[in-house]
Amino acid sequence: MQVDQLIEKVVEEIKKRSDVPKEEAKGPKAAGCGITEFVGTAIGDTIGLVIANVDAAIHEKMNLDKKYRSIGIIGARTGAGPQIMAADEAVKATNTEIVTIELARDTKGGAGHGCLIIFGAEEVSDARRAVEVTLKELNRTFGDVYANDAGHLELQYTARASYAIEKAFGAPLGKAFGLIVGAPAAIGVLMADTAVKTANVEVVAYASPAKGTSFSNEVIIMITGDSGAVRQSVIAAREIGLKLLNTLAAPAQPVTVPYI
Amino acid sequence: MQVDQLIEKVVEEIKKRSDVPKEEAKGPKAAGCGITEFVGTAIGDTIGLVIANVDAAIHEKMNLDKKYRSIGIIGARTGAGPQIMAADEAVKATNTEIVTIELARDTKGGAGHGCLIIFGAEEVSDARRAVEVTLKELNRTFGDVYANDAGHLELQYTARASYAIEKAFGAPLGKAFGLIVGAPAAIGVLMADTAVKTANVEVVAYASPAKGTSFSNEVIIMITGDSGAVRQSVIAAREIGLKLLNTLAAPAQPVTVPYI
Amino acid sequence: MQVDQLIEKVVEEIKKRSDVPKEEAKGPKAAGCGITEFVGTAIGDTIGLVIANVDAAIHEKMNLDKKYRSIGIIGARTGAGPQIMAADEAVKATNTEIVTIELARDTKGGAGHGCLIIFGAEEVSDARRAVEVTLKELNRTFGDVYANDAGHLELQYTARASYAIEKAFGAPLGKAFGLIVGAPAAIGVLMADTAVKTANVEVVAYASPAKGTSFSNEVIIMITGDSGAVRQSVIAAREIGLKLLNTLAAPAQPVTVPYI
Repeated sequence: MQVDQLIEKVVEEIKKRSDVPKEEAKGPKAAGCGITEFVGTAIGDTIGLVIANVDAAIHEKMNLDKKYRSIGIIGARTGAGPQIMAADEAVKATNTEIVTIELARDTKGGAGHGCLIIFGAEEVSDARRAVEVTLKELNRTFGDVYANDAGHLELQYTARASYAIEKAFGAPLGKAFGLIVGAPAAIGVLMADTAVKTANVEVVAYASPAKGTSFSNEVIIMITGDSGAVRQSVIAAREIGLKLLNTLAAPAQPVTVPYI
Repeated sequence: MQVDQLIEKVVEEIKKRSDVPKEEAKGPKAAGCGITEFVGTAIGDTIGLVIANVDAAIHEKMNLDKKYRSIGIIGARTGAGPQIMAADEAVKATNTEIVTIELARDTKGGAGHGCLIIFGAEEVSDARRAVEVTLKELNRTFGDVYANDAGHLELQYTARASYAIEKAFGAPLGKAFGLIVGAPAAIGVLMADTAVKTANVEVVAYASPAKGTSFSNEVIIMITGDSGAVRQSVIAAREIGLKLLNTLAAPAQPVTVPYI
Repeated sequence: MQVDQLIEKVVEEIKKRSDVPKEEAKGPKAAGCGITEFVGTAIGDTIGLVIANVDAAIHEKMNLDKKYRSIGIIGARTGAGPQIMAADEAVKATNTEIVTIELARDTKGGAGHGCLIIFGAEEVSDARRAVEVTLKELNRTFGDVYANDAGHLELQYTARASYAIEKAFGAPLGKAFGLIVGAPAAIGVLMADTAVKTANVEVVAYASPAKGTSFSNEVIIMITGDSGAVRQSVIAAREIGLKLLNTLAAPAQPVTVPYI
């Protein structure tokens, strides 16, 4: 009896104190909190909000373009890549623009980033729709994020990059795009080298702890080129990255379901 | 028998590995460690120290003004706002100046900052008194810090800002001041917008992950104006922030006792 | 029966979710993962890799000198000082150069850094040897790292600094060198002052959360001078640092075996 209670207490304590990303949080939730600006939440401690009429004083401090009365807001503790890729689909599907993308050093004690993404729109319905699409896409874009106690990998691929990817990574519009992330950063170096040797792709950018990241422990390579080549490079980087990450801790598992 | 021992081990292990801020650490402690420079500790893994005669070589590397022989030191893993607000009271109450305020990206895996605050004084007794006052005030200034597994909010209010607030935030001396922090940053955006729409206040500054923070996952707004208006704005921001933070995880609780 | 299973589950859950540095990971491991570029792993979630022929596109993006065909790679989640000191021995023992040292804001939710160190070599055998030496030395250089729930100290000492120490800290080649780190940063301030007052040493550099670190919650002092004086200063800083760190949490323990 007493033993059972003790165990219960222990299990509760663990749940309370654990800050591992909630994997059960698949798909956006919008159970609501009685606030009209609330759109929903999703995996990665991601929250989606809208403001129909941004206050003039805030508008100015945020350096928003005056033509945007309304903004959509995506913020997350864990991940920047998945949210940016998801926002890219949202921009394709709605009448919005990406206004700012900021990367916090976060992931709740992990090696990577959190993010704050702002969509600008003339109508609040457009901003809301962009946030909804982003939240919905996150389940897919977390599919090739692999994590264990020692670090994480992230792989992303799209056949056609849109404005969020251009804004965040400087990749060419309308072309295939691949994102390859390894943490700790040493693993990312080898993933980057492998990706470029695998197929004929072009390096858009290369980021490391002191250059191009918010001091995250990642090496990130961004590639473009023929869609088949980009996809092949991303898959090769994933294969070598997983083997390396698994030398440091228990086998890394995908956060949701791999899509590449 | 063996079962009990196993459970004991498990509970011990959890305690050892858990790095949740110690909430039992309310009020400053000065149990001493046999070092004359030690003043005490307080909530947020905050430690207070003094140096009566700073070594010339260190003095120069720290860029201290030559008139300060003595320094008081406040450092913490969790929090910067509570320590700055507390230091502001210390500066009002003692013959010291705030020399530097530095913000680490910390909170032990959380979304915010840690801090290092240096007081300069001509007499070591003044430096010690400033550190003592700061440690004592922390119990109050952690009152409107709310945290859950997904993030945190921080609210601060004073009817009359002094030199620490001016140094840290650029707020006007002697006027009412409010600090509003939301993490993840998306929540801070809505809190900021709400605060400014609630009453007639002036925005002193607006900080976000890539601008004005140490890459923390926060949006921070600093406001000034009529004391009633500032207080009303802070309270409105707190209300909407709590509702939003609670959509992501279990209801956020105040770290100590709310004072606003 | 059921109780035993529950306990097993709890213990497994703790292991899975815990991200405390693996202290059992003493000494390098090279159990292999079937990848020729893999050299081994060591304490601090450190991984060692080599690339025999760096791809030209990556070579350019990494800003490597063209004469280096091969690179050795050391990356870690926890620690930068131990890896830099170990790399310093590797550079002394091999025909390699330190190309880049980057410091992530990491330690898995702790107060310090992680790192990415790249060795350049004309021959892959030299790069591999440098990585091997570094991994092997880490067991020693983690000897004077002390950690508890509230923070950490790090002490390093060498009678003769080589190129890694020069590159990372700007210390003079061939002279004795001491590294003193305290976290939270307030503790580092007092350790620095104590070190300089203890013996006749010269301050090479002084780093704090906003200057010279990647926003870590550390104050770091680097000293040079007569080898006896440097060693004495480091030991004095360690003594006072331990007493202070232990006022905040359970007594800090050395990660491996102290060597200074």
